[in-house]
Parts: sequence; C-alpha cells; structure tokens
Amino acid sequence: MKIFGIAALFAGALIMLTGCSKETPATGGESGHAATQQTFKWKLVTSWPKNFPGLGRGPETFAEYVNTMSGGRLQVQVFGAGELVPGFEVFDAVASGTAQMGHAGAYYWKGKMPAAPIFSAIPFGMNVTEMNAWLHYGGGLELWRELYAPFGVIPFAGGNTGVQMAGWFKQEINSLEDLAGLNMRIPGLGGEVFKEVGGVPVTMTGGEIFVALQTGAIDATEWVGPYNDLAFGLFRAADNYYHSGWHEPGTALEFIVNEEAYNALPADLQKIVEVATRAVNQDMLDEYTARNNQAMQKLINEHGVKVKPLPDDVLRALKDATQKVLAEKSAQDPMFKKVYDSYRQFYEGVAEYHKLSEQAYYNNR
Amino acid sequence: MKIFGIAALFAGALIMLTGCSKETPATGGESGHAATQQTFKWKLVTSWPKNFPGLGRGPETFAEYVNTMSGGRLQVQVFGAGELVPGFEVFDAVASGTAQMGHAGAYYWKGKMPAAPIFSAIPFGMNVTEMNAWLHYGGGLELWRELYAPFGVIPFAGGNTGVQMAGWFKQEINSLEDLAGLNMRIPGLGGEVFKEVGGVPVTMTGGEIFVALQTGAIDATEWVGPYNDLAFGLFRAADNYYHSGWHEPGTALEFIVNEEAYNALPADLQKIVEVATRAVNQDMLDEYTARNNQAMQKLINEHGVKVKPLPDDVLRALKDATQKVLAEKSAQDPMFKKVYDSYRQFYEGVAEYHKLSEQAYYNNR
Repeated sequence: MKIFGIAALFAGALIMLTGCSKETPATGGESGHAATQQTFKWKLVTSWPKNFPGLGRGPETFAEYVNTMSGGRLQVQVFGAGELVPGFEVFDAVASGTAQMGHAGAYYWKGKMPAAPIFSAIPFGMNVTEMNAWLHYGGGLELWRELYAPFGVIPFAGGNTGVQMAGWFKQEINSLEDLAGLNMRIPGLGGEVFKEVGGVPVTMTGGEIFVALQTGAIDATEWVGPYNDLAFGLFRAADNYYHSGWHEPGTALEFIVNEEAYNALPADLQKIVEVATRAVNQDMLDEYTARNNQAMQKLINEHGVKVKPLPDDVLRALKDATQKVLAEKSAQDPMFKKVYDSYRQFYEGVAEYHKLSEQAYYNNR
Repeated sequence: MKIFGIAALFAGALIMLTGCSKETPATGGESGHAATQQTFKWKLVTSWPKNFPGLGRGPETFAEYVNTMSGGRLQVQVFGAGELVPGFEVFDAVASGTAQMGHAGAYYWKGKMPAAPIFSAIPFGMNVTEMNAWLHYGGGLELWRELYAPFGVIPFAGGNTGVQMAGWFKQEINSLEDLAGLNMRIPGLGGEVFKEVGGVPVTMTGGEIFVALQTGAIDATEWVGPYNDLAFGLFRAADNYYHSGWHEPGTALEFIVNEEAYNALPADLQKIVEVATRAVNQDMLDEYTARNNQAMQKLINEHGVKVKPLPDDVLRALKDATQKVLAEKSAQDPMFKKVYDSYRQFYEGVAEYHKLSEQAYYNNR
C-alpha cells in the first residue's frame, strides 16, 4: 500500500518543517493524508441478503476491488437488505444520499419509472451477451443514465444471472388454464405479462419468498436459478420446477451511485469505481454459470425435484402477451418508447447474427 | 488526479524545508514522487495490428484504464505486432522482460507448451460464457498459471471473440472431399483437426493473411468473424464465407505479465492490473457482439458475399477428428491431460445446464 508510504513520508517532512516554520497545512487526521489525498467512506446498500450467492457476492467483490485498488482511499461498506434500508428502498436511499451507492435490479423501480425494467430484463428479450453489448456498445447505458438523471443517480451494469428459470409451482402446469388465478411472485414486465394470461403477479423481495410459498400465500414463485433457489430451500415449499425461462432471459443487475458523491471523487477513484463495476459485471455471470449446474444436480439427485419444461401453449400465450404489454407501455410512456425502440432495434440485429453463431453452435456441437 | 495534487504539495513542503535543513530526501524526478510513490512504465506488446478492431482495442482499453486508475503511477504503452517484436514473439518478449506485458492468444505457444491451446479454444468445446466460468470459478486460471509459471509469465483472461466463423474459401465446399489437400490458415487445435480430415493447416499472423489468400499461397483462411474479416478485406480475395463455426467456439485472448515486473508493483497497482484485465475481458466481447452483425450485413449487402453453412458430413468428420486429436494429445503430454481433464469435466456439466437455459432459450424465443 504505497499510498500510506507517501503519507508517512509527507507527515515526516511536515514534522521536520514545523521545526522552522509555522506555515504548515493541517494534516488529514489519523490517516496522515492531506486534503488532496482525502479518504472517502461509502455505504453500499443492497436488495439482497448479505453475502447471498451471486447477487450478494457481487457488491462484496466490488468493495474488495475498490478498497484494494484505491489503497484504502475509497472504503466501501456493504449492507444487506434491511440492515440500513429495506431492499426495495435502495434507489431512494441512493437518490437522497443516505447511501452513496446501491446494488439492486432496475425493475424494482418500475413504479417510479415505467422504462426501468428494460434495463434488467424483458420477457423473450436479449440474453446476457446481447444485453451487455447493447448497454456498452449500443447506446443502452446512455439511455439508462438519462432515465435516472432526474434523481441524481448514475447507473452502471452490475452483474447478470443469465437465463432465469421459469420457477417453482405447488401444482403442475399442464396447460394455459392452470395459470388462471394463480398467485405468483414475479416482478417487472414478466409480472405484467403473467397478469395478461390470467395470473396474479405478486411482488416481494427475495427474503420473503420462502415463507409466502410455504404458507400458501403464493402458489408459485420465480426467483433466479438453481444456485440461488437451492440456497433459499424453495424445493421444500413446492414440488415442480420449470426450466423454460421466458420472463428474464438474462437479468442485468445494477450498481447505482449518488451523483454528488461520484462527482466529489478525483478522476482516478471515479475510474476505479467504473472499472470495478465492469469487472463484477463479468464475475457474477461466471459464478452463476459455474454453480448453476452443480445446484441443479443437487436439486434433482438429493432433493428429488422434478424439472420440466413449460407446455408449448403456455409459452406461445406468454410470447403473444409480451408483445401486447410492450406495445401498451410504448403507447403510454414516451421514455419507455424511446428506450424500447433502441433495445428492439439492437435486439433484432444481434439475434439475427446469433442464429449464425452462438445459437447455431449450441445446436451443432 | 489527486496524485499530482499531493505530489505538488509534497514538493512544496520540501522546497520550504530546504530553507532550513539539508537533510531532505531526493525527489523522484519530474513527477515529484518519492521512492515510495514510484512511477512504473510498462511496455505491452501484442500479436495484432495496432488499434485493430476488437483484438487490438482490448490492450488499448486496458492501458487507458490502468493509466487513469493509477493516477499515472503505472503507465502502459501498447505496441502493435512488429513495432517492438513480431506478433509470434510476444510470449518470449514477456518471459525475457523485453516487455513487461503482452496481449495474444495462448494457442500461438503450442510449440512450446502442447496444453496452451486449451486456454484459447478447443474445437467443439466451450463457448465464451462457459470458458470464462471455467477460468474464474472452475480452476482453469490456476492451471493456466501453473503452465506458464516455468517461464516466469502470469496469464490473465484478456477478452473473447465469441464463436468464430468457419472462414473464407476460394472454392465452394460441398463435401468432405473438397477439403483434401486444401491449404488453409488455421491455428491451434483446429489446425490439427483440419489436418486429420485431409487438409493442410498453415500458421501465420493476421497481418499476413490477405496477401497469402489473394496470391493463392493459401486456398482458405479462418480469421475471426465479420467485424475483423471485413476490416481485413478478406471478401476481396475469396468468395465463399462459411458461418458454421466449429474450431474456435469462444476464443479467449490473454494478457500475459512478466512475473518479476508484477511482483515489483505495490498491492494497489497489482489489483489495478488484475481488475482492468477482467473489465477488458468483458468489454471486448461486448464490442464483438455489437459489431459482428453490422459487419455481416455490410458483407452481404454491399459486397455480395455468399454466407453459408458447412455441409453436415464435413461437420461430422471434424467432430470425430476432434475427439481423436484430443485423445492423442492427452496420451502424449501429461500437462495436456491434466488441463483437458479439468476442462472436459467442467464442460460436460455446464453444457448440460445450458441445454435447459441458454440453448433452450435461443430455441424458444
């Protein structure tokens, strides 16, 4: 940690200096840093249980990267959901400056900004590779920043789960009729599409799901995928696990930063924050990719979970309903239309290319 | 750039100090940094033309990240292939310390280390998502470091192209017979598999390909994908563009660092190097994903390129030959066997899970 080295040397120079002059600048307290070498302490609030696999590891990794890269000049402390603020109040906490930073999913803020869910996942939309390309080379991140700017909040891509599983159902789903009146925990645009085909979408943070499912307050839930679903023990509360992920085909998480706090950082620390988010964005997907299959095998072999695809008529109905919901949203909210137009144009192109590359390779190998 | 701020202040203190004492430490030259705040200047040599789209942008982005995050304490200068050393001498240059760092592809070093190509791409092997997960959460990176350790070189994942195209052929390929005696530029294990089915693999750096193809020194070439292939103008030298990528289904690039140079860095700069490589690893894929489709449309619509799949019998023969080559390599080289065993075990698991997630989603959406 060279940074402490120079601080000590500088403090030493000052001590010698004070021997012959009183014109010394004040030292920066215990750290010995002068004002120009200021130490920043940031709170990072999250929507996840502290240290939760994948989602919760992302912000911890971020903090570790930043603390080390900055030589301790930017110290980030991570809070689990409910430790400082509830999981669904992360955005407000960052906007108000209660915390300098947050880690969450953009679709949690759809009540405030109808376009927000586009920056986490759209049913039958882009997968993780496509989403990252749109955000960083297709104009997506600029639109995301435009959306959050009125709140003084700056978003960064903050990891991705890959394709999420369709979820856990207490009863088997054999046809579209089985969804009628079903209470299911499903957030974002997926929830609105689910309503369109006759279901009843419910929103709650991850930590509340297990009890709701076990007590029968909900009949079904999606959460993430085998790695996280196993960690919550959802298999103890529902028997049927459907894999045909449709509602969140590559869910982006977000790091959000209070604009004033960010602007107060020197350029090197700003870049450290930015690059650390990019690295975590990749790292979280790597963790999910490596751990999901192990967890799936455990669910099947140790817990006797039945894993199955959704029936074709259900998938078809969901796909049709998705188009309807997206068209309605575009008609209702000009910012939704602006963001979705960019998303759709990029998606059409990249999906076409993936037919010749990623998709063709999956099917050829 | 606070770092310059404190340097100036420190220099100021020294100037005042020298007014009443001669016991001053030497300043660190123009930068004003003392020894504890040492500035490091690194050369980064690459196997690509300077600033080449994707491959060449990766090291430039890395340098920009590191220069800014370190406040100028670690200054990285990037050299294109042939500017300081030839493209195929990057590894030796880093091992010897001629350059502190390199950016290349591991399969270029297969003459030195038979197992090296596993860390770039295996025919019919893992795609980019799977490869990154194996490297960072499946033990892959540890094995890679074990392989390079005897040379005093530390590897980091350094970007990925995604699925590469099967390549450019002067004549149409209608059956396996059309490959017999064909001179094709194809590196790594793909080249050995190509030889197994009757072709003649040739190795050369990217910069040499166009002339070789145009003069007929080679009959065919793979390079990367539409984005890079368009930049080289390969469509001017061959008419047939085959998309069914099989030989490099998610090619990892590498950053390599001279071990002594790395160990000489303080902990904050070491972490800055590590995290910057992770961020570039993601960023390069984003660039390829966003640009490949645009380039493919340009090749088809503006340059009249015919894009087609390889015949089924060719793909089948290549797949069989791949198994043979991998078995032979495992029998010949214990380190190849050790690395490939880890790779294969991870691949079998993750491919099984991707059947229910990424692959299923591509086919359902």
